[in-house]
Amino acid sequence: MTVAREVELEGHIIDSGTMETAFSIIMDMGGEFDVETFDIGRSKTETSYARLTVTADDEATLDAILHELHQNGANPADPDDAELAPAPRDQVVPPGFYSTTNHPTDVRVDGEWIPVEDPEMDCAVVVERGAGTRARTAVLNAVEAGDMVVTGEAGIRVDPPERPRESEGAFGFMQGGVSSERPSESTIEQVADAIVETTREGGDVLAVCGPALIHSGAREDLARLVRAGYVDAISAGNGFAVHDIERDLYGTSLGVNTETLDHARKGHKHHIYTISEVIRAGGIEAAVEDGLVESGVMYECVVNDRPYVLAGSIRDDGPLPGTITDAVEAQNAIREQAHEADMVLMLSTLLHSVAVGNCLPSTTRVVCVDINPATVTQLLDRGSAQAVGMVTDIGTFVPILAEKVLGGAGADSGH
Amino acid sequence: MTVAREVELEGHIIDSGTMETAFSIIMDMGGEFDVETFDIGRSKTETSYARLTVTADDEATLDAILHELHQNGANPADPDDAELAPAPRDQVVPPGFYSTTNHPTDVRVDGEWIPVEDPEMDCAVVVERGAGTRARTAVLNAVEAGDMVVTGEAGIRVDPPERPRESEGAFGFMQGGVSSERPSESTIEQVADAIVETTREGGDVLAVCGPALIHSGAREDLARLVRAGYVDAISAGNGFAVHDIERDLYGTSLGVNTETLDHARKGHKHHIYTISEVIRAGGIEAAVEDGLVESGVMYECVVNDRPYVLAGSIRDDGPLPGTITDAVEAQNAIREQAHEADMVLMLSTLLHSVAVGNCLPSTTRVVCVDINPATVTQLLDRGSAQAVGMVTDIGTFVPILAEKVLGGAGADSGH
Amino acid sequence: MTVAREVELEGHIIDSGTMETAFSIIMDMGGEFDVETFDIGRSKTETSYARLTVTADDEATLDAILHELHQNGANPADPDDAELAPAPRDQVVPPGFYSTTNHPTDVRVDGEWIPVEDPEMDCAVVVERGAGTRARTAVLNAVEAGDMVVTGEAGIRVDPPERPRESEGAFGFMQGGVSSERPSESTIEQVADAIVETTREGGDVLAVCGPALIHSGAREDLARLVRAGYVDAISAGNGFAVHDIERDLYGTSLGVNTETLDHARKGHKHHIYTISEVIRAGGIEAAVEDGLVESGVMYECVVNDRPYVLAGSIRDDGPLPGTITDAVEAQNAIREQAHEADMVLMLSTLLHSVAVGNCLPSTTRVVCVDINPATVTQLLDRGSAQAVGMVTDIGTFVPILAEKVLGGAGADSGH
Amino acid sequence: MTVAREVELEGHIIDSGTMETAFSIIMDMGGEFDVETFDIGRSKTETSYARLTVTADDEATLDAILHELHQNGANPADPDDAELAPAPRDQVVPPGFYSTTNHPTDVRVDGEWIPVEDPEMDCAVVVERGAGTRARTAVLNAVEAGDMVVTGEAGIRVDPPERPRESEGAFGFMQGGVSSERPSESTIEQVADAIVETTREGGDVLAVCGPALIHSGAREDLARLVRAGYVDAISAGNGFAVHDIERDLYGTSLGVNTETLDHARKGHKHHIYTISEVIRAGGIEAAVEDGLVESGVMYECVVNDRPYVLAGSIRDDGPLPGTITDAVEAQNAIREQAHEADMVLMLSTLLHSVAVGNCLPSTTRVVCVDINPATVTQLLDRGSAQAVGMVTDIGTFVPILAEKVLGGAGADSGH
Repeated sequence: MTVAREVELEGHIIDSGTMETAFSIIMDMGGEFDVETFDIGRSKTETSYARLTVTADDEATLDAILHELHQNGANPADPDDAELAPAPRDQVVPPGFYSTTNHPTDVRVDGEWIPVEDPEMDCAVVVERGAGTRARTAVLNAVEAGDMVVTGEAGIRVDPPERPRESEGAFGFMQGGVSSERPSESTIEQVADAIVETTREGGDVLAVCGPALIHSGAREDLARLVRAGYVDAISAGNGFAVHDIERDLYGTSLGVNTETLDHARKGHKHHIYTISEVIRAGGIEAAVEDGLVESGVMYECVVNDRPYVLAGSIRDDGPLPGTITDAVEAQNAIREQAHEADMVLMLSTLLHSVAVGNCLPSTTRVVCVDINPATVTQLLDRGSAQAVGMVTDIGTFVPILAEKVLGGAGADSGH
Repeated sequence: MTVAREVELEGHIIDSGTMETAFSIIMDMGGEFDVETFDIGRSKTETSYARLTVTADDEATLDAILHELHQNGANPADPDDAELAPAPRDQVVPPGFYSTTNHPTDVRVDGEWIPVEDPEMDCAVVVERGAGTRARTAVLNAVEAGDMVVTGEAGIRVDPPERPRESEGAFGFMQGGVSSERPSESTIEQVADAIVETTREGGDVLAVCGPALIHSGAREDLARLVRAGYVDAISAGNGFAVHDIERDLYGTSLGVNTETLDHARKGHKHHIYTISEVIRAGGIEAAVEDGLVESGVMYECVVNDRPYVLAGSIRDDGPLPGTITDAVEAQNAIREQAHEADMVLMLSTLLHSVAVGNCLPSTTRVVCVDINPATVTQLLDRGSAQAVGMVTDIGTFVPILAEKVLGGAGADSGH
Repeated sequence: MTVAREVELEGHIIDSGTMETAFSIIMDMGGEFDVETFDIGRSKTETSYARLTVTADDEATLDAILHELHQNGANPADPDDAELAPAPRDQVVPPGFYSTTNHPTDVRVDGEWIPVEDPEMDCAVVVERGAGTRARTAVLNAVEAGDMVVTGEAGIRVDPPERPRESEGAFGFMQGGVSSERPSESTIEQVADAIVETTREGGDVLAVCGPALIHSGAREDLARLVRAGYVDAISAGNGFAVHDIERDLYGTSLGVNTETLDHARKGHKHHIYTISEVIRAGGIEAAVEDGLVESGVMYECVVNDRPYVLAGSIRDDGPLPGTITDAVEAQNAIREQAHEADMVLMLSTLLHSVAVGNCLPSTTRVVCVDINPATVTQLLDRGSAQAVGMVTDIGTFVPILAEKVLGGAGADSGH
Repeated sequence: MTVAREVELEGHIIDSGTMETAFSIIMDMGGEFDVETFDIGRSKTETSYARLTVTADDEATLDAILHELHQNGANPADPDDAELAPAPRDQVVPPGFYSTTNHPTDVRVDGEWIPVEDPEMDCAVVVERGAGTRARTAVLNAVEAGDMVVTGEAGIRVDPPERPRESEGAFGFMQGGVSSERPSESTIEQVADAIVETTREGGDVLAVCGPALIHSGAREDLARLVRAGYVDAISAGNGFAVHDIERDLYGTSLGVNTETLDHARKGHKHHIYTISEVIRAGGIEAAVEDGLVESGVMYECVVNDRPYVLAGSIRDDGPLPGTITDAVEAQNAIREQAHEADMVLMLSTLLHSVAVGNCLPSTTRVVCVDINPATVTQLLDRGSAQAVGMVTDIGTFVPILAEKVLGGAGADSGH
């Protein structure tokens, strides 16, 4: 005896790969399929529609197949409402809870499809019934006893974004694998175009920055981009801020003068002295206001009122006042930044980029830059449809980017 | 005014991605399509069939689209014969010559489809008419004045292998990107199974080896695999052979004792002494027969009559007698090895692996092992349908592989 | 007018490089020297002694030179007492505070040399006068108002450990750069010997573990080493513990079955389900006691009472109960582990390895294993005199290590 | 019974590390030493002098120690003449032949010290007695029957260059390990300064180039440096030249338009068409003269009469006419280039860089640029005293370098 259910696919399901994926899932997972209806888009502007009957030997297999099909955009032909169950206590979800993708998602409640707010991977979906029924994502540690959590597979519709075509604007430019053998300057030019376009449209650009950016001498150019309004927010760690300010106070980063390349003897202590001085001043804002700190990325953030999050980590010295040392609190601050960003630059930091990437919907534009191809690959694997990666040197990338963004536009552009 | 032509696709064209690829090519290259017929395979065992009319603004665009479609398995609905033109002189092809893929290919001559012998990338196709008409690939430097070379796009049929399903035996095991975060021992076990299976079926396993294999201490285990008949041929460079024999004569590889890890002072001269001694003996075979060399990979090749090719390169010391110093001659020797191999292990050498990979049809099983993820990615990008990559340490890979292959089977297995 | 001071060097100051370093520092920093006395050790067992007069143009330069000489083992010929100043408030050090190296260090208080407890990099030295005067390191955030903190350069004696000779036991084995072209199995054997030796002498082995260890299939073998008493403590993050337990509950790590290599569809949700189940059970210990978790590294830690620290980070899902989410608290827990360790294995994690490394004195034995050479280089650069690095695959390293450690000794060895 | 011999050291033997090295060698190799005389340079301008008696248990050990000491600048106190023996036949050296370092070396013939011409690693020294006695290096395959070859350890004096101080000009700038976390633009500026300085002094700059340079879009800027006379010679392979010319003929490199980033469909065939066109034209020079090729690096070489060597390899398509396919012949051409170069830029090619590096004396300035840190490390390990390495993106390095070199100086500078 076998069990069966019908699913539907709609859209550019062939050239987006959706159809291929659906067939593969069913076969790989031990199911069978019959194509009941197939209306192919006869030309490139028409969408296609398919209805399949999926068959499996038992309910468990069928459920697994349907779950996987959902997540890839094949939805039940005649959907039920989503099943809801209360969270038994804080941070504990009901058995069989639905764990989200980062794609736009709807859940069916009382016969109506409700969009899930702030799509994010690996969350629960909490439904709040009422005048206006809402559905929102909740990370495990934000689930509260009594929250109505979606369970099972029914009544959930996932809409993975179709892959952009090569010719579709700035983000069609890099398809396929990660390689350092790409035309570097031309690629940076396209990233610059995308930043300018995002800014013109009133969008926000978030830069996620690692300390290597400072060590490699790119600090002044990033500061210019912040000042000119092309980078609207900074997500970083204590180390980034320390070395940024060290450069201001001592002319060094990790003890190396980034202009003359001199190793200041005693210079490896500069970062500790820097932290101590900022604590003495009462924090980063106070240090800027007192005139202790007079340049750099953090300085421009304070002076131009660009929000920043400094998340603590176990390798920090200090940390600087204002660093959020609790990982859960820091994640919440990062989540807020991520939800506001329309474009994210991930610049030479794996830890912070993963943290930000975890909170992003698959529709946000992402650019990952690192000299280690494995880092770029790992970041691109997280499922953004609009992510591009570049294996290059952050110390040359940022200066060239700043020149291409600011060159024609002047310093007072942006917002 | 537009121009149009019909093409056909047949097979598992949806789940193999062929259909998606065809649609993408046409749209990316500025063409249009109409789906004239589409018979979908209604279940996973049935194949599908599609006939499309491809339209473009001019002949040049249409030609380019059709060329690209060919190479991906979409063939003209009503094929003409292939066009042939004589090579004007040695090493010079006629204008517009057809440059091959590494997929199985047929050319239509006098109304009949002739399979092209030894499919290999980036070659010309030479047709020899006669009692039995033949078509064969020829690298540029092997083209001779008067050879009848296929030109243009007509009368050529390419059949790219469908991607294997996950469940289809040993080579379904690794799909997707290259990562070092895969289960290492289990992956090696599957490679071992594939070697044993290939050997049992009478197939030939070719190992392409870099000197790192010797430096990392894997020499003895590779020698055991050669002796036991699981590695049937060796493709390497002068350096590999020198360090293999250095280990025999001096107990070192590049001057390091691979067992005790002692740096033999003076040891960095051992490889020069080794070359000199082998030259004195009259070559590798003579050195083995004289009893000068008593162990190692080259020793086992000589004693067990396994063919090897040592290709010279510009970084060689020496080189050892028997090294083929001319690159074109060496390629020809490598090509012969590659055509005889049923499975190829690429072990820690980019140069030799690319050289061998260039000569392989897309249907040969390939395993690429390197500690540098960029090397593995580059090798896998060369278009084999049956290639798997592993980012691991050759110095632990080969010992574990040898144990898994030889463990149950004993030393006298293989052939 | 110039200023001058005398410094002394003692020990194997030539072959340990101390003399060379001292000369280089003085010349690089713009000073001059006169060798007043030089008694060379006439044979390899005799130590040497040198007294130099260091001259500079001004006090600032001389101070900088003397500071640098101190840190490299050249101490003032007639030392003064260390200068002490009270910390003005919590987390704020007095101006010119002395920032520590990770070498054994003494400070001179009331004419007597007091060893600084728990040497650690980038700390302040706090002196507690009294019946028994003590000196201890304090990280910035542990400095309290009124603490007497060492400032300036006087009265501080640093004793950098001499580099071990090649022949001196297990840790003489790897000198020089980081390379993947080392004999892998033999190197692992020497690491195994060092672990067995450390354990026999009653020392503690701390393993710092990243999640790649689980993904790459090395979990069972690390669990065996914990069970057998060769790994005494674990330092890791939430991700490591989650995937370790995921493997127990679902047979997967990040959704991949580490034995069969099957990608469990839906498997990418397993880690979320795992966290939820452990929260439901009330924590890791409870999950083991309830019989929910029955194998793995965390299981062996609980059952065999091996202490572990799980430090939170901003990329965590969950996290699991027991994860220390505050970075400063987590550092304190890590610091305690680090101080108790006699040997540290850093296994495929940069973040946690740096955190542990920050707390280690330069005399602790350290083994760094990673497939990324840049990670190994970065870890070795942190100044341990007894650190060895290995660029290899953690998924093959741990199994071979376990076999070499446990092979002859049996499962009940260790403590 | 023990054997003993006296050796001398002279120069800045402490701060250059020579003394430390000598002590280490003797002790590591099981010898003993007595310091007979030690006159220390009392200030930084004075050199030191030491005479040691080295003792060992047997002649073999003593010989080994003395050999190693030689190579590191400790020479016998009362030297004998070098021993000479005739090569028994072509390519075969007499037993115990002396294998060279790449340091300046003298051999003692008839009581006189003769400098060895063209110092190069891993060669034999051939002495030609006569009116003016000469000594020259010979690679194994250049040794001819009857050549008088230096054997044993006596009568050879090696003078390893002292490491440059940090402050000594452009090449003092990068000491220590290889890292991507260095200030990129400032480092490139210093490389630019060194190129300008070398050119001003009439020296020759040799660029060793891999195809990644073309793929990454740096071709036009390298061409400018050739045209302006800052790059005097090119050492590359067939692939570099093919892609350089492909960019001219088709606007692509490996089929990618390096400006628009479009993947020309059919573009992966462009390199084959390029080769065929150049063969048809009769070679690169002819293709330039005929007006077929109108831009690029090879074009500038032809037009400005800069010598180039294209060395063949087994991965070549074609190759282009003029490529030297025999590895031994190609090495000889490379050797000639290397001997004429005063500064060498190794740009994104391991194979060709190793080949050139093998032929360089340790006194030539070398800059190694690659995005893979393992490549840079491997190249720097080859023993140049004046080598600097940079882990960066060749596609951004060359444009910035060109701007810094050509910015102020204009296009007609250089020679």
